[in-house]
Amino acid sequence: MAKVQPRTLSGFMELLPKRQVQFERMADILRKSYSLYGFFPLDTPLIEASDVLLAKGGGETEKQIYRFTKGDSDLSLRFDLTVPLAKYVALNYANLAFPFRRFQIGKVYRGERAQRGRFREFYQADIDIIGDGKLDVSNDAEIPAIIYRTFTTLGLRRFQIRVNNRKVLNGFYAMHDLTRQAGAIMRTVDKLEKIGEKSVRDLLTAPDIGLTDQQAADILQFIAIKGSNAQVLAALEQYRGRNEIFDEGLDELKLVAQHLAGFQVPEENFALDLTIARGLDYYTGTVYETTMLDHPEIGSICSGGRYDNLAEYYTDKQLPGVGISIGLTRLFFVLEDQGYLNEGLNTSAADALILPMTEDMAAAIDLARKLRDAGIRTQVYGEQKKFKQKMAYADKIGVPFALFLGEDEIQQGKVSLKDMASGQQELLTHEEAMERIVSAVRGQEGQSPILDKGVK
Amino acid sequence: MAKVQPRTLSGFMELLPKRQVQFERMADILRKSYSLYGFFPLDTPLIEASDVLLAKGGGETEKQIYRFTKGDSDLSLRFDLTVPLAKYVALNYANLAFPFRRFQIGKVYRGERAQRGRFREFYQADIDIIGDGKLDVSNDAEIPAIIYRTFTTLGLRRFQIRVNNRKVLNGFYAMHDLTRQAGAIMRTVDKLEKIGEKSVRDLLTAPDIGLTDQQAADILQFIAIKGSNAQVLAALEQYRGRNEIFDEGLDELKLVAQHLAGFQVPEENFALDLTIARGLDYYTGTVYETTMLDHPEIGSICSGGRYDNLAEYYTDKQLPGVGISIGLTRLFFVLEDQGYLNEGLNTSAADALILPMTEDMAAAIDLARKLRDAGIRTQVYGEQKKFKQKMAYADKIGVPFALFLGEDEIQQGKVSLKDMASGQQELLTHEEAMERIVSAVRGQEGQSPILDKGVK
Repeated sequence: MAKVQPRTLSGFMELLPKRQVQFERMADILRKSYSLYGFFPLDTPLIEASDVLLAKGGGETEKQIYRFTKGDSDLSLRFDLTVPLAKYVALNYANLAFPFRRFQIGKVYRGERAQRGRFREFYQADIDIIGDGKLDVSNDAEIPAIIYRTFTTLGLRRFQIRVNNRKVLNGFYAMHDLTRQAGAIMRTVDKLEKIGEKSVRDLLTAPDIGLTDQQAADILQFIAIKGSNAQVLAALEQYRGRNEIFDEGLDELKLVAQHLAGFQVPEENFALDLTIARGLDYYTGTVYETTMLDHPEIGSICSGGRYDNLAEYYTDKQLPGVGISIGLTRLFFVLEDQGYLNEGLNTSAADALILPMTEDMAAAIDLARKLRDAGIRTQVYGEQKKFKQKMAYADKIGVPFALFLGEDEIQQGKVSLKDMASGQQELLTHEEAMERIVSAVRGQEGQSPILDKGVK
Repeated sequence: MAKVQPRTLSGFMELLPKRQVQFERMADILRKSYSLYGFFPLDTPLIEASDVLLAKGGGETEKQIYRFTKGDSDLSLRFDLTVPLAKYVALNYANLAFPFRRFQIGKVYRGERAQRGRFREFYQADIDIIGDGKLDVSNDAEIPAIIYRTFTTLGLRRFQIRVNNRKVLNGFYAMHDLTRQAGAIMRTVDKLEKIGEKSVRDLLTAPDIGLTDQQAADILQFIAIKGSNAQVLAALEQYRGRNEIFDEGLDELKLVAQHLAGFQVPEENFALDLTIARGLDYYTGTVYETTMLDHPEIGSICSGGRYDNLAEYYTDKQLPGVGISIGLTRLFFVLEDQGYLNEGLNTSAADALILPMTEDMAAAIDLARKLRDAGIRTQVYGEQKKFKQKMAYADKIGVPFALFLGEDEIQQGKVSLKDMASGQQELLTHEEAMERIVSAVRGQEGQSPILDKGVK
């Protein structure tokens, strides 16, 4: 028979089994961390009607959409989880309790140019809190606290959540009569880390934006405010009283900083940073970016912010929200690439592998049932193979414990338990063996999927 | 601004938050049950190259495929999880340990005619065990044991896994010189429950298949063998010695029945049933179907079987396997439709809702951190609303406990804990409140998402 060459599309991540276990462990931690903060899980279709998905229209994204027809329907694959959320909230408004808190971990699709580390199919892991008409700023403080807990549970240490507020920026521009140019200025300033101060200055004073040298200098001086969070806030206080929007933004920023301290997020892991603006016009208040301190070149691994109007394309209801998104597939790729994955993690699919040494498998099946009832992930090796091949299998799947059941063991009602790591083997009662395995597994539960040694 | 009508495509399931929690609980139980048997989780792309996905070609399925082009690429959405598994195993053969055990829970796409209870996007939850060259029949016995554990953990009681073996059927047809017609006969016999005995007899004797009345009667008599598993096996023994394939199939069937008893699967929940053939030519040995005893009209909710050659379109390697699939989206729809969902399940996103009664939220934030550190899913209600509105929110999200923090509580270092179900409210220390919540939550952990009252 003629064969088709099996292959996976480029830009689509498909992992080997043990890597997949590691990925699942990370996704699990995200789910559990998000759940601790009272977010509902949400699952929306991957396919939406094109007019619904592209209601906002235009932009860079539209070219990347996977769009096609099926029968009479013009369909598109979702390219993020925010538009489906907006649709969902508008559609189910009457049945939701506000603030509506939801998390969603799901695949999204963007037909980007294929290159190393860029994915066309990738997981996003989003949390959002949506208010009805209003949403208290205390929610803006909770978002980075959630990210802090999530990342530290994953095992990350040297990361920093950077927080700013666009009202502070907008207010500052208004003080300098630059409101009209504020959007363009922020998009330019956002590139500071990438292109450097000189290039930003050149762009600001070029005809497109058209600032005077003095105005550009004022802006660069303003966003150069650095120091501890208390120092940044003190420096910003110097500008108070000159613009209402600025003052509002400063109050919000102060509250966020104060609440974050209450959530016990260390200053090392969160910083007020006036250079953060986020490129999207969508954001209206607090904005977040997260960088790995030892790998700033990777860019933000978790971003988001406050927006005024989640679903304006679908409804007249004012639905302000605040949210953040982790690009999980890319993060996993980066962590593997940079050697952050914990290679000592138990990534076997089973904790116990029963190797029957007799033809009759009744005793093995009985023992397997007992182990599983005790919550031990157990596999029975049922193939008629030589001992050496059975052991090779145990090695290959990386199972922590092998259990031998021969005539002798069965007669004595015992089992030979081999600790695969130490090589030690002991004849034990079923109960003793189970205790041994359960306690070993329990000891591994705290293992994090990431090992961040914090090399500077 | 002109609005786009928000809507979800027909044939795509999108649930309200509490229903979604119930769905997630079911998916979680599937994941955990499958994991207890040592299966690796697998995640493959939703999009594959069309030539890879449709290597088998033809058939009813191809018309239903979502197929489209992006740039120069001819792409298709997966329509099941078996073809991607075949591709994966062929592609990664050298890096896998065999038997390779994997589970996958993921969405698949079929552009079927939209009608109530039919889905175009739906979850399948598959387990498969793939051998390299050979695969022991003990694996065939484990599959229904896994399904038994999975369904009972979900809360289902009145279901029956029906097992047959195609070698028994093929051997029987060979005895009657009907090998050439065996495929057509099995596809016809498979419809017995749907269309009744008379229609099956008519189809068998019609020119297309062309059996004599005697042959049709022999077949109908054979598949009418009923009784306990021991009785069915005894009846089959009468045919032994007349055909090698039949004898092999009978031995396999006996072993499966014997092992299932060892796995302590009750006879009520599993039956040898000679009417089960599965429509697909793909299966070569053991076959499974699962029916709800009180709703046979729903058809099989979980089906599968043994196959000789998983990946013949991609590789010359002989890769026999055995597997089973739950159509999770359809099952969920049916369970909701028939009133099987446990409406008493805690489907709130949080176990504790903190209601700050002062403007300063510091105490609330501090308490929330403590509760979350203790593993309690906690939400702080930060909106400036009247007490009545706060309570309405607590009711609407269905949270089991509300915690009030006013001036008095804060001064005393205490909290007022309200049990939302009983309405009882008590002033407690933080530690007392936490203990109360933790023990209530622990008590709910055993709640199953399905309540099967077993009405006959």
